[in-house]
Amino acid sequence: MVPRKTHFTSEITPELNGREVVVAGWVWEIRDLGRVKFVVLRDREGFVQLTFKAGRTPDDLLSKIPQLNKEDVVVVRGIVEASKIAKSGVEVFPQEMWVVAKARPLPVDLWEGTSDLPTRLKYRAADLKSPRNLAIFTTASEILKAVREVLYRHKFVEVFTPKIIATSTEGGAELFAVLYFERVAYLAQSPQLYKEQLTASLERVFEIAPAYRAEKHNTDYHLNEFISIDGEGAFMDYNDIMDVLEEIMRSIASVVNSRRDRLEKVGIRPVLEKVDKIPRVDYDEAVERLRALGYDVKWGDDLTVEMQKALTKFYGPLYFIVNFPASLRPFYTKRIDGDPKKTESYDLILDGIEVVSGATRIHRREDLEREMRERGLDPAAFESHLSVFDWGMPPHAGFGMGFNRLLMSLLGLKNVREAVLYPRDRYRLEP
Amino acid sequence: MVPRKTHFTSEITPELNGREVVVAGWVWEIRDLGRVKFVVLRDREGFVQLTFKAGRTPDDLLSKIPQLNKEDVVVVRGIVEASKIAKSGVEVFPQEMWVVAKARPLPVDLWEGTSDLPTRLKYRAADLKSPRNLAIFTTASEILKAVREVLYRHKFVEVFTPKIIATSTEGGAELFAVLYFERVAYLAQSPQLYKEQLTASLERVFEIAPAYRAEKHNTDYHLNEFISIDGEGAFMDYNDIMDVLEEIMRSIASVVNSRRDRLEKVGIRPVLEKVDKIPRVDYDEAVERLRALGYDVKWGDDLTVEMQKALTKFYGPLYFIVNFPASLRPFYTKRIDGDPKKTESYDLILDGIEVVSGATRIHRREDLEREMRERGLDPAAFESHLSVFDWGMPPHAGFGMGFNRLLMSLLGLKNVREAVLYPRDRYRLEP
Repeated sequence: MVPRKTHFTSEITPELNGREVVVAGWVWEIRDLGRVKFVVLRDREGFVQLTFKAGRTPDDLLSKIPQLNKEDVVVVRGIVEASKIAKSGVEVFPQEMWVVAKARPLPVDLWEGTSDLPTRLKYRAADLKSPRNLAIFTTASEILKAVREVLYRHKFVEVFTPKIIATSTEGGAELFAVLYFERVAYLAQSPQLYKEQLTASLERVFEIAPAYRAEKHNTDYHLNEFISIDGEGAFMDYNDIMDVLEEIMRSIASVVNSRRDRLEKVGIRPVLEKVDKIPRVDYDEAVERLRALGYDVKWGDDLTVEMQKALTKFYGPLYFIVNFPASLRPFYTKRIDGDPKKTESYDLILDGIEVVSGATRIHRREDLEREMRERGLDPAAFESHLSVFDWGMPPHAGFGMGFNRLLMSLLGLKNVREAVLYPRDRYRLEP
Repeated sequence: MVPRKTHFTSEITPELNGREVVVAGWVWEIRDLGRVKFVVLRDREGFVQLTFKAGRTPDDLLSKIPQLNKEDVVVVRGIVEASKIAKSGVEVFPQEMWVVAKARPLPVDLWEGTSDLPTRLKYRAADLKSPRNLAIFTTASEILKAVREVLYRHKFVEVFTPKIIATSTEGGAELFAVLYFERVAYLAQSPQLYKEQLTASLERVFEIAPAYRAEKHNTDYHLNEFISIDGEGAFMDYNDIMDVLEEIMRSIASVVNSRRDRLEKVGIRPVLEKVDKIPRVDYDEAVERLRALGYDVKWGDDLTVEMQKALTKFYGPLYFIVNFPASLRPFYTKRIDGDPKKTESYDLILDGIEVVSGATRIHRREDLEREMRERGLDPAAFESHLSVFDWGMPPHAGFGMGFNRLLMSLLGLKNVREAVLYPRDRYRLEP
């Protein structure tokens, strides 16, 4: 009977000296020095050195080492010993070992990291075993946990809204069609209208779920299926939401920093050191700065990644741009009282990339209808949504965060596909 | 300038006596007794009584009361007073009030709960404002939080796998087709194969995300889009997973019990009192019991909801059935060593309904191929998945939990549609 794993490799510390443990994982490296043989075992959390020594290790166990291949799956019962020689200051002397699965040579190189991205994505399940990917995706999980904790603290409740929808929710983006029994339906590009509706009942809601864009461009920043973190709060405006986002980013930075050692070991240098107050830069000021820098940008233009990167020299790696022209924002964005060409809106820019976008929303039906008409949308097509505004719609504001893009920017990854387990893009539907 | 909400209604307690607060929500009830007028304000968390009194309340504020309609959205600044008369032992004397949105009569009855389910689902955004729905969906969020906490404690990391897939993952269930650029793709029925693959890298993973079944039957138990809570752990077997599920169910029961008062006030009587050890009933024993009760059931038959309900008299409202015949389980289920007609599998039954299903999985490629062939599946079609088993696949086991069904059973709801914000079924694609 194979015993249960008792510790992850990262939990095997010198303090366990003399204790019996069961470790389990994958053979990373084998060094056979004759009477002493070392096997480095990898698991999700790191590495541990197994030391086999003639005289000390049972003979039948010693005889198994020459048969081991890299990536064989083994479970090992042994004794921990603090060590001055082993890298981590600790080693395990095995007493029993079970080879629970044999491995054939892998189609990607986990060891030197020489495989190119297309190959890595093609054999993604193998590629995900690399220490680099393990560091990325355990960090991703910790970040999600931290985001939820801030949202719970601010009394947001978690919701799930449908991803199969009858019609385009916002206009604009291209949608994937779904054959839904006798009808054609679509995959939701965002939970925008649902989350707004829910502020009339659950007040503060958040959702972490997939979103879909049938966009044909195939860049390093775009995915056709991505994870969207959405929040919306009744009785809040865009400044309140930016306050919450500031806490979220502070918490995320602290998660990433607590993992800085592990990340740097695999060549990842996190971009954010520490988050205090995040500058809230007026769109007008941003445009002026850019013109002074020589950029050809007019009031009313959208800012490019290049421009956003240029602004980091004034505002640091993390800043908000606020109060965008109404023409740049969707129909449900509230205009600023007394300055109606501009809106109560913001983008959060990390390392030049927009990672969050949001605004105070319009909560009066007549305003919403007027904005729709101005943009050539027919309010009649939105009747089901508009009627909700007749039933007591509170003022509200919210945010949408592209989780994979955030992860990419935070960790300084070159391609957003590195920030998804199994990416979906224009030409990639498998694995 | 409308001030920020400082408290939810449930936070207005006698201890705040004398304090100034800002509450915000929806007009639930208006009682005009002449010189004294009461407005009951509802928000997500409950109710608070606002007391307007001639002489004490500013005149301009008093004059606003006759214009108020039910469901108007108001923000109120006022002073808390402990009260012997008000139901909750506390009332608020308003000093200022902002009517931030007017409401027209609602298409559903929130007050007596007389609207039928189709009407409620048609006008779902209005229906969700009912105290019953607020109780259901705030509880749902708390349950998700509790589930994640147990999984984090057992070192599962959160993942997201693609919902747009190239081919049927498991065979069997009917899939919705998606037009993915030039190709036809499908919506995933479960993350089964992905989560198994991920045990070879991240070891213990969980995912909470939508899943899709294009099944045509339209019953009280089925949805075409639902939320699936999936977990999979390397170096674990089905007993280990059942241990984790026991903790999850214990934690869920404790969440629900802590909210019992609120739930009972809206007519919901939670099914579970307290969870200790959950019985693990062998399939053979279940069949014998049922035959003794007079049910026409043979070894190898699936158990019906009626049968599962009948078994609660022996095992209580929550029990596992374990070790199902291989013929009843999917191809990736591990057979029991020495008893190969049966499998290391289980269902968790709550109030007669299967809410979780899982098993130890096969982790050897040749076994998996044999099981596929026995079921008429062609291993060549699964090559991308099977190849992962060549790269060091650990023994693993897991679970899949239908979140909406769980919520329905836990709260004793009659229809699973009551356990989804915006349900999707055979004929319902809106709102």
